[in-house]
Amino acid sequence: MSRFWSDTVRNILPYVPGEQPQDKKYIKLNTNENPYPPSPKVIEAIRKEIGSDLRLYPDPEASLLKEALAGFYRVKPGEVFVGNGSDEILAFCFPAFFNPGDVITFPDITYSFYPVYAELFGIRYETTALNSDFTVDLGSFPEHADGILLANPNAPTGIAVGLNEIEVLLQRNSNKLVIVDEAYVDFGAESAVPLVKDYDNLLIVQTFSKSRALAGLRIGFAIGNRDLIEALDRVKNSFNSYTLDRVAIRAATEAVNDKEYFAEITGRIIKTREETAKRLVSLGFNVLPSRTNFLFVSHDRLSGMELYSMLKNDGILVRHFNRKGIENYLRITIGTEEEMEALVERLSCYVKSV
Amino acid sequence: MSRFWSDTVRNILPYVPGEQPQDKKYIKLNTNENPYPPSPKVIEAIRKEIGSDLRLYPDPEASLLKEALAGFYRVKPGEVFVGNGSDEILAFCFPAFFNPGDVITFPDITYSFYPVYAELFGIRYETTALNSDFTVDLGSFPEHADGILLANPNAPTGIAVGLNEIEVLLQRNSNKLVIVDEAYVDFGAESAVPLVKDYDNLLIVQTFSKSRALAGLRIGFAIGNRDLIEALDRVKNSFNSYTLDRVAIRAATEAVNDKEYFAEITGRIIKTREETAKRLVSLGFNVLPSRTNFLFVSHDRLSGMELYSMLKNDGILVRHFNRKGIENYLRITIGTEEEMEALVERLSCYVKSV
Repeated sequence: MSRFWSDTVRNILPYVPGEQPQDKKYIKLNTNENPYPPSPKVIEAIRKEIGSDLRLYPDPEASLLKEALAGFYRVKPGEVFVGNGSDEILAFCFPAFFNPGDVITFPDITYSFYPVYAELFGIRYETTALNSDFTVDLGSFPEHADGILLANPNAPTGIAVGLNEIEVLLQRNSNKLVIVDEAYVDFGAESAVPLVKDYDNLLIVQTFSKSRALAGLRIGFAIGNRDLIEALDRVKNSFNSYTLDRVAIRAATEAVNDKEYFAEITGRIIKTREETAKRLVSLGFNVLPSRTNFLFVSHDRLSGMELYSMLKNDGILVRHFNRKGIENYLRITIGTEEEMEALVERLSCYVKSV
Repeated sequence: MSRFWSDTVRNILPYVPGEQPQDKKYIKLNTNENPYPPSPKVIEAIRKEIGSDLRLYPDPEASLLKEALAGFYRVKPGEVFVGNGSDEILAFCFPAFFNPGDVITFPDITYSFYPVYAELFGIRYETTALNSDFTVDLGSFPEHADGILLANPNAPTGIAVGLNEIEVLLQRNSNKLVIVDEAYVDFGAESAVPLVKDYDNLLIVQTFSKSRALAGLRIGFAIGNRDLIEALDRVKNSFNSYTLDRVAIRAATEAVNDKEYFAEITGRIIKTREETAKRLVSLGFNVLPSRTNFLFVSHDRLSGMELYSMLKNDGILVRHFNRKGIENYLRITIGTEEEMEALVERLSCYVKSV
């Protein structure tokens, strides 16, 4: 610690991303990356971007990407915001839409970055309990809250709520901003994008890191009515004029345009997920119903920590959250069929040995 | 405006980056980009990075780049922070080192993003006047301030202070954090990096967007003692785990390692700057002594706005700040010899016609 640290820095507990050990080659099922490479058209487009123009600043508006996203989601370019991963966009939401003293609310078991943002920007937060089956109780958010932050599907449970339920939530909370974090929505859940035209209290945040296989380039986007997007633009332009680099803008644009490849790889991941879930159930695992590219599972006879450690020892990385209520669960990213085969084979051995 | 806007968003006046008009092809001397392409070794290294691994998150620590920078600047990797452009790092400094109510101070004529950061993060700021010759009065910073933010060389004046003066500033303000923004230092000014080992109140911020010809990839870095770097890490890890993408990390690392190319292009820009300055003086321009990749100039018979407009009309973009005290000046980026030839030729015509 230094005498120059602010109170914020002294008190904050930063988010810890999934481990990336370098000691050996692992089957990496711990950070919800896509097991398939980006579209060949993305790679091709990047190759064309690599040259002398890297000396020039990117387009601060990233108009090319906004237009592609607007086309894909059937909204207007002015209803789209882009940023350096959905993490950056979620961070911007705090100073954009909340004042010190305001309260934002989210489930107690959800993406664990949310309370960190609140601490960083000095916004209060209140959490609500999940139902006993790990579903979100959409009626539980406190009336006095100024905003709701909902991951749909939720992480790390993988459970989604339907579009009708989101619409009811928006209607019941018309005086509150509702931010829906759809990081995993492309793996079989329903996006709330079609509701944007009718609800000015809805902001949707998505990422290119999961379904579009571009975690390495850091791209996220938000969709909402123009006024909400303008607020994010004002924060971004008061923070960093150019958050997306030339390569990322070009790559993301091509990723949006290659709809067939996107459908193919998300379809494959969903298929592998369903097959893996069935096999884990047959091994006695409790498997929550997932609409994401991961499974959240537990076993009565083996603790989450034991399973995590045995798998790591055998060269398979999964994510374990040492947190009350979910300490016996593992979050397992859906990899290739071969990777899941290796996982199931290992888990099968552990289960048979106890 | 929306009922969901925070007070911050309602009141803030975002930074406006240099224009990028698309109506025709301009000689672009308005955003201080490097006229030369990145090192061929950088391009080659990026080509190798473009592939399947883009599906994976980057190293959140960007260790490869930190080690390269530590080697180049003869500091330890733990004394280096990296970010999405120096703008992002400067932004992080506000919540990292200042509490609401604290006062940060900087000259009234300097990088116009500084007051915007202060507004965004709710930190007070006080500015001090430059001397009449546009040099910074290092004795003018108020005693009650909690921190000093100094661009050296200063922008948009281009004028640098020497290492001895920085050391005296650090000694006289040993109770204050002194952030030195060295965005333009590689064009002939003295970096304060050698002082880091002796002064725990010194943080240096630099960028790859100017001397290293990588504005398109968004990379900046800071050097300071470990505690200051840890504060920045804590803010970054509470904001966005991965601010630098895989391509940027690889490209920046190679740019640092290719010392010869770096020396060659910065040397050429300095030479072109000196030649251009001489020619402008001979045309009757007042040219401030620059240690940057731009010149800050005025002419007694033509206003800054007139010169800016005539140049734009003739296909040459320069930057004009419509701001009291510098409204008659133009900031002209040093381009290639051919580009400066075209500029001087145009300015020569304007001067002869009045």
